[in-house]
Amino acid sequence: MPKILIIYQSKTGNTKAMAEAVEKGVRKEGVEVVIKKIEDTHVDDLLAPDGIIIGSPTYFAATTAEIKRLIDDSIKHFKKLEGKVGAAFASSGGLGGGCETAILDILRAFLVHGMIVPGFLSGGHYGPVSVGAPNQERKEVCTAFGAKIALLVKRLSAK
Amino acid sequence: MPKILIIYQSKTGNTKAMAEAVEKGVRKEGVEVVIKKIEDTHVDDLLAPDGIIIGSPTYFAATTAEIKRLIDDSIKHFKKLEGKVGAAFASSGGLGGGCETAILDILRAFLVHGMIVPGFLSGGHYGPVSVGAPNQERKEVCTAFGAKIALLVKRLSAK
Amino acid sequence: MPKILIIYQSKTGNTKAMAEAVEKGVRKEGVEVVIKKIEDTHVDDLLAPDGIIIGSPTYFAATTAEIKRLIDDSIKHFKKLEGKVGAAFASSGGLGGGCETAILDILRAFLVHGMIVPGFLSGGHYGPVSVGAPNQERKEVCTAFGAKIALLVKRLSAK
Amino acid sequence: MPKILIIYQSKTGNTKAMAEAVEKGVRKEGVEVVIKKIEDTHVDDLLAPDGIIIGSPTYFAATTAEIKRLIDDSIKHFKKLEGKVGAAFASSGGLGGGCETAILDILRAFLVHGMIVPGFLSGGHYGPVSVGAPNQERKEVCTAFGAKIALLVKRLSAK
Repeated sequence: MPKILIIYQSKTGNTKAMAEAVEKGVRKEGVEVVIKKIEDTHVDDLLAPDGIIIGSPTYFAATTAEIKRLIDDSIKHFKKLEGKVGAAFASSGGLGGGCETAILDILRAFLVHGMIVPGFLSGGHYGPVSVGAPNQERKEVCTAFGAKIALLVKRLSAK
Repeated sequence: MPKILIIYQSKTGNTKAMAEAVEKGVRKEGVEVVIKKIEDTHVDDLLAPDGIIIGSPTYFAATTAEIKRLIDDSIKHFKKLEGKVGAAFASSGGLGGGCETAILDILRAFLVHGMIVPGFLSGGHYGPVSVGAPNQERKEVCTAFGAKIALLVKRLSAK
Repeated sequence: MPKILIIYQSKTGNTKAMAEAVEKGVRKEGVEVVIKKIEDTHVDDLLAPDGIIIGSPTYFAATTAEIKRLIDDSIKHFKKLEGKVGAAFASSGGLGGGCETAILDILRAFLVHGMIVPGFLSGGHYGPVSVGAPNQERKEVCTAFGAKIALLVKRLSAK
Repeated sequence: MPKILIIYQSKTGNTKAMAEAVEKGVRKEGVEVVIKKIEDTHVDDLLAPDGIIIGSPTYFAATTAEIKRLIDDSIKHFKKLEGKVGAAFASSGGLGGGCETAILDILRAFLVHGMIVPGFLSGGHYGPVSVGAPNQERKEVCTAFGAKIALLVKRLSAK
């Protein structure tokens, strides 16, 4: 049975709320899902899942040092993540803006790992974004995003 | 039967040589392939294939105006390219450098279209790159890249 | 006396309105300014000014084919634009989003030309952005941006 | 008298060798320069200098978690770095590639700080790059880069 790991970093709770909405979408499609805070995530956690979704706050129009730490550590498993599905979402706070480049930072790392990255027609060009706390519409976008990734993971896992 | 369209732009013949090596890899996997120069490509050509591969020269560390023209025109088919596989490769000439950002320019457009973009473990982080004419090693990288995309297209097309 | 050239592309009038607000800011600082539509701009127009500002619509989260055409043509003057100040702003329409990556596309080209690119603390991380028609606040951001660039051009032109 | 701070991260010594060549170029122009390893750098060190140059290894085609840590911490001094000159250089190792996007990661943060970022006509589109240890030619590129930044800092510091 395919599995998805959602990793998020959240100080204000905004990215956490998005992560939980994404999780709901994944479950809807009957895919097993684990959700972890970045501080509870070990690089070895990246090995088992068929899909990895990272939710990041936006600092300086980029992903955070904490998430880049996990990405840098993942060199330990270079070539072992190939073919997994990767996706990302981001929230931004005070300064506004920069969510899209934050998401692209994460997607670039997934591509370097030889992972498979889907695009999205709504909610944010490269994945869901939210300025401040996600409202109901943003949560629905996150849930639809989670469902879409789950579907792709299922298609790619089918024999 | 799944189909792949390869579109390339080439003044010196370098990107053309890469495109032909990519085509060879696609054929190897038994996937139907059409190869077109950018000047012979119509935006409606994007509709039929299951996978679209674009090969670009690198001008100012970016893709070219001609390829951006095709991308801009593709708004006509927004939402109709969702779920197709997209990939790109690039050559650079005199100035050197910039191939990776040129490829990323194209991949970003594919993601906005809701397409599925795979990463690669060798030959270039986001797709094959060549400074000047591709040598034998670069051609082999291009062929392996074509084969890999063909395999992904087949997996995604299978019922 | 230092000169600034503002080039913009506008179908709906939104980028034009931003360009005119930028122009106002440049004039305020007593710097000579010429404002041109992209379709009236020749690559040789890039030679005389001390600062070049480009305003772009956002197509596929990127600058447009028309502006990339001007950038590609500017290879004719490679090495001759070194040390000029470069800045950019962008508007986005229907799809929303992508203004920041559109601006970065232009700034990357300016950097390849050896130009000098200032950042901004408000209105958009890399230059002013507007979703749809700029309101009064957005116009003021554009005017402040124009004034800031004019000041930098004056400082760099002083003996 | 204007000051430049060079910050670098180096495990293999390659980025350190580049940093020392950059330092030589800055000194040549008679600008005061301090050179610091990232692990010895405190975010408050960013306040005094007129120019900040960061040298980064390339991990996953991006700057490192350690340098992103410094960037994230620099929010403490948001608005206080405005108008300083910022530049970056990068080395890459085993995987090759990605230096340009690593440099762009740093330049984006400088732009968000309202800093002034110059481009370069040789040695790398956005700053010097080196695959592996810098050879004599690469060191000269780094020295020319340091001199160029020093000159810009002097011009901007002059009354």
